[in-house]
Amino acid sequence: MTKSWQERAKEKRGSIHALIPHEWRIENPPVEKQVDVTGKYIRQYLTEREIEITETTADEIVKRTITGQWSAIEVTKAFCHRAALAHQLVVHCLHEIFFDAAIADARALDSYYAKHKKPTGPLHGLPISLKDQFHVKDVETTMGYVGWIGTFEGKTGTGKEKVFESEMVRELRNSGAVLYCKTSVPHTLMAGETVNNIIGYTLNPKNRNLSSGGSSGGEGALIGLRGSPVGFGTDIGGSIRIPAAFNGLYGIRPSVGRMPYEGMANSMDGQNSILSVVGPLATSVPSLRLVMKALLAQKPWLHDPLVHELPWRYEQEKEILELTGTIGDASKAGKLSFGVIRSDGLVNPTPPVRRAVEIVVKALENLGHEVIDWKPPSHKPLLDAGIKTWTFDGGADVKGAFALSGEPLSDQIAFYDALEKECSASDIAATNVRLRELKKEYMEYWNSTAEVTSTGRPVDAVVSPLAPFPAARPGMYTYYGYSGFVNVLDYTSVVVPVTNVDKGVDKVDVGYAPIDDVDKRVYESYDPEIYNGAHVSIQLVGRRLQEEKMLAIAEYVGKAVGK
Amino acid sequence: MTKSWQERAKEKRGSIHALIPHEWRIENPPVEKQVDVTGKYIRQYLTEREIEITETTADEIVKRTITGQWSAIEVTKAFCHRAALAHQLVVHCLHEIFFDAAIADARALDSYYAKHKKPTGPLHGLPISLKDQFHVKDVETTMGYVGWIGTFEGKTGTGKEKVFESEMVRELRNSGAVLYCKTSVPHTLMAGETVNNIIGYTLNPKNRNLSSGGSSGGEGALIGLRGSPVGFGTDIGGSIRIPAAFNGLYGIRPSVGRMPYEGMANSMDGQNSILSVVGPLATSVPSLRLVMKALLAQKPWLHDPLVHELPWRYEQEKEILELTGTIGDASKAGKLSFGVIRSDGLVNPTPPVRRAVEIVVKALENLGHEVIDWKPPSHKPLLDAGIKTWTFDGGADVKGAFALSGEPLSDQIAFYDALEKECSASDIAATNVRLRELKKEYMEYWNSTAEVTSTGRPVDAVVSPLAPFPAARPGMYTYYGYSGFVNVLDYTSVVVPVTNVDKGVDKVDVGYAPIDDVDKRVYESYDPEIYNGAHVSIQLVGRRLQEEKMLAIAEYVGKAVGK
Repeated sequence: MTKSWQERAKEKRGSIHALIPHEWRIENPPVEKQVDVTGKYIRQYLTEREIEITETTADEIVKRTITGQWSAIEVTKAFCHRAALAHQLVVHCLHEIFFDAAIADARALDSYYAKHKKPTGPLHGLPISLKDQFHVKDVETTMGYVGWIGTFEGKTGTGKEKVFESEMVRELRNSGAVLYCKTSVPHTLMAGETVNNIIGYTLNPKNRNLSSGGSSGGEGALIGLRGSPVGFGTDIGGSIRIPAAFNGLYGIRPSVGRMPYEGMANSMDGQNSILSVVGPLATSVPSLRLVMKALLAQKPWLHDPLVHELPWRYEQEKEILELTGTIGDASKAGKLSFGVIRSDGLVNPTPPVRRAVEIVVKALENLGHEVIDWKPPSHKPLLDAGIKTWTFDGGADVKGAFALSGEPLSDQIAFYDALEKECSASDIAATNVRLRELKKEYMEYWNSTAEVTSTGRPVDAVVSPLAPFPAARPGMYTYYGYSGFVNVLDYTSVVVPVTNVDKGVDKVDVGYAPIDDVDKRVYESYDPEIYNGAHVSIQLVGRRLQEEKMLAIAEYVGKAVGK
Repeated sequence: MTKSWQERAKEKRGSIHALIPHEWRIENPPVEKQVDVTGKYIRQYLTEREIEITETTADEIVKRTITGQWSAIEVTKAFCHRAALAHQLVVHCLHEIFFDAAIADARALDSYYAKHKKPTGPLHGLPISLKDQFHVKDVETTMGYVGWIGTFEGKTGTGKEKVFESEMVRELRNSGAVLYCKTSVPHTLMAGETVNNIIGYTLNPKNRNLSSGGSSGGEGALIGLRGSPVGFGTDIGGSIRIPAAFNGLYGIRPSVGRMPYEGMANSMDGQNSILSVVGPLATSVPSLRLVMKALLAQKPWLHDPLVHELPWRYEQEKEILELTGTIGDASKAGKLSFGVIRSDGLVNPTPPVRRAVEIVVKALENLGHEVIDWKPPSHKPLLDAGIKTWTFDGGADVKGAFALSGEPLSDQIAFYDALEKECSASDIAATNVRLRELKKEYMEYWNSTAEVTSTGRPVDAVVSPLAPFPAARPGMYTYYGYSGFVNVLDYTSVVVPVTNVDKGVDKVDVGYAPIDDVDKRVYESYDPEIYNGAHVSIQLVGRRLQEEKMLAIAEYVGKAVGK
């Protein structure tokens, strides 16, 4: 008799747990007793040395591993331990655990180093976590679907099961990285919260009343707990940036064609009007830069037909470093010009997000930079075109994935049930034309800001909320406009952590007049008591394919706000 | 009473002719009396000075116009005259004539030069012809559709009629170019011959038994007759390269995202699985390089959301120049490695094309380069996916355009009548996945050639037929595989003219055994008597976004074969 989806999910959940060594197993305190499990709380289970290693940023770790100061195996074990703890504390953030393979890989890296007295690559000995869309040999990819258990992307007999590796996996290994776990996602990947029928709901470790975000929510929770120094997520409507923002991390959404997506599992694969992109999340900007530079050094455009031949462009970075006086003659430093989105006019940010935006604006102005009001074409048509695009197939792909096992859709993505009709080629073509027109209009608005800045240049970046709330409360993620417009425009965007909710400061506005029902629901989901302590972040939006420039600006802004 | 489509077409045809000054009108000799109207034939109507100007390549023209040696007005008038003659001799190659505006623009350029003692830009005073997809103010765009006469892309009351300009038009004007005519296309743009109900059929001026090619056939015929020094066409299945090859010209199909397509009219706009690209045709490689560099200097990525930020990369060019000993220490020059496609296994090239390929192979080998057999994955699935993509909408767009006036489809595109069903979103997504897989497979084959070359690098370029015949005979263009596979893969390709048909040499093979019916029809369309004298060209195929490298190689190969 075939097993029920419940049994299969339970088995899989159990098999993940079984891969946690007994000595690393802990009791998970009830949320009401322990809201915040980061920092001091998780440290109680770790040695001083493990804490030292796991609280070092990726760029600082490799400085030690490539010089032989730290061994790959010690670093790897420390992160495996902390990741195992993280998984148990946010119930759950890991879909796949392969600590043994990681330790074997780390041992091989150490042997290489001992023999050749040099590292294998720029990421030598660096543990990197991966969202459960990456294929890694000897490991499954379920993407949270019960029906994908024991298959290759829902199919059997492909010969690829547990053998095939995604292109980026190959490149990371070539660069010396150690892969050790894959992280949780919401089934379909189309939600800003992470929940599926296999591992349950991934909580926010900083405030377990809240979501860790999605769809790269496992990455967010894991890195938020320092169970990984840097990890890769994907983003089609905010899925890298949402978990980065909710967990107080830096995260970049590169433009399409910058990082290799080749050979990864996906939802609605082949929808190519607004593409999902892959990019890193980490605790520092130099960590993001490190892994992106390492990947570009592998010339991914020779192995992924969708990647453009754009090596790392230091000139872009240098321009910002000079303008901010970070390098060169400080007396010659210039000024940056920022736009600021205080509200997109559709849904207002809640009080802590408003405060975070103002903190950034003040910090920039205090440093002598210019911040002007961003008055772009309405985001409404952009978001409408985005929603249309993301549902071109009327839910066919998603429904097919659920039908494999008979498991139910979570509430977060229940809207798929209401979808019926597939769009026709003519519909899709018309949407593509519309998308191009909207991009052109926005682009010309951006160009036009050269007329209002004092630098004579169009604004360098736009300070914007990433979501209306610091993090969503479970089941209450109802507005994606702040993250989504960036995907529709294919802009570069970097999330910067700014502050934490302070219930004494971030009070609810008395007599708030909501714009409409969506705005009302968002606003009412904010409760200072519940949100207290949560991370609050913003995003810095740049033009298309401006990854080097935007990382330089994000690092500068991060320092300016003291994160 | 509304006019019939016949009347409207005749009026339009007449209005084009009416713009040719009386003193430039000539008798058109019957084809049987004068097969070749290039060279000596057309020169009889021109002054020595006009011949000197119009037979100078674009790059050499601007050397004179930017230094004030030649005036913009003299150059412009010479090309207007020769274009007017061309139009009459190939019945017809122009859709729009705006000589008066061009002369006024040229006068303004001369005034600027006289006043400022410097040119307005790198294309100062250079006449450039445009395929009738570009929108130019004060001028119509019909794209060969009777139903588009008096409209903006088939619509009325848009406010854009005769006012709106395509992005590249703006950039060309900014660079100092003079625009003076728009050239003929087959209605739908989906044919390798140029025919429509407005201007008729565009003949090949070198051999008027043959087609000038398509869909940029007007460009091919016009430049073939030196009625333009350089012009822009578009290419979704060969439409730049076919007319370049048929008319003995150089032409480049850049990869998607290199040159600005923004604001141009198109067929099936919004089909974004295999995009049409825009690129130049000219009588020399330096002419192509000139206009591409000028456009990139305008930073088109700031005005076209689909253009990548890729300025002209001299390093790519330099690498080839050094390897070929063109620059640097000749004794240190290296070797290039080429693949050669003698047949794609689906349809064999006819005898003159086979000979052209061997001429190139011999020339390269004599220069010390390596030529290996190109044994890629079969082109069949690539072409199948291409054909599927180009008919996603079941002909809806095309049928709509014909329905506007009630005019009939030409035989060349009658296949649209048989199409019915639109593809669904799921179909399209599956095709997109397939296209990506095929690209990945071909890419890895290309990578793998590093193992068989003596350079240790993958092959630098592939020598391939561009079409199975030197040019199509009217109504006999039945196989697009040699040009089309490049579009499916989004590779860079440059057409290089090699030789001319010699009926004494390029004989029909006795007892040729055709592969199948398509091959048989293609083979039987070749007749040495009919083809004698026709241009024969090949294409050099490079990887994606390798425009600088491929132009350098094409220039080198062109010199090697003496064209």
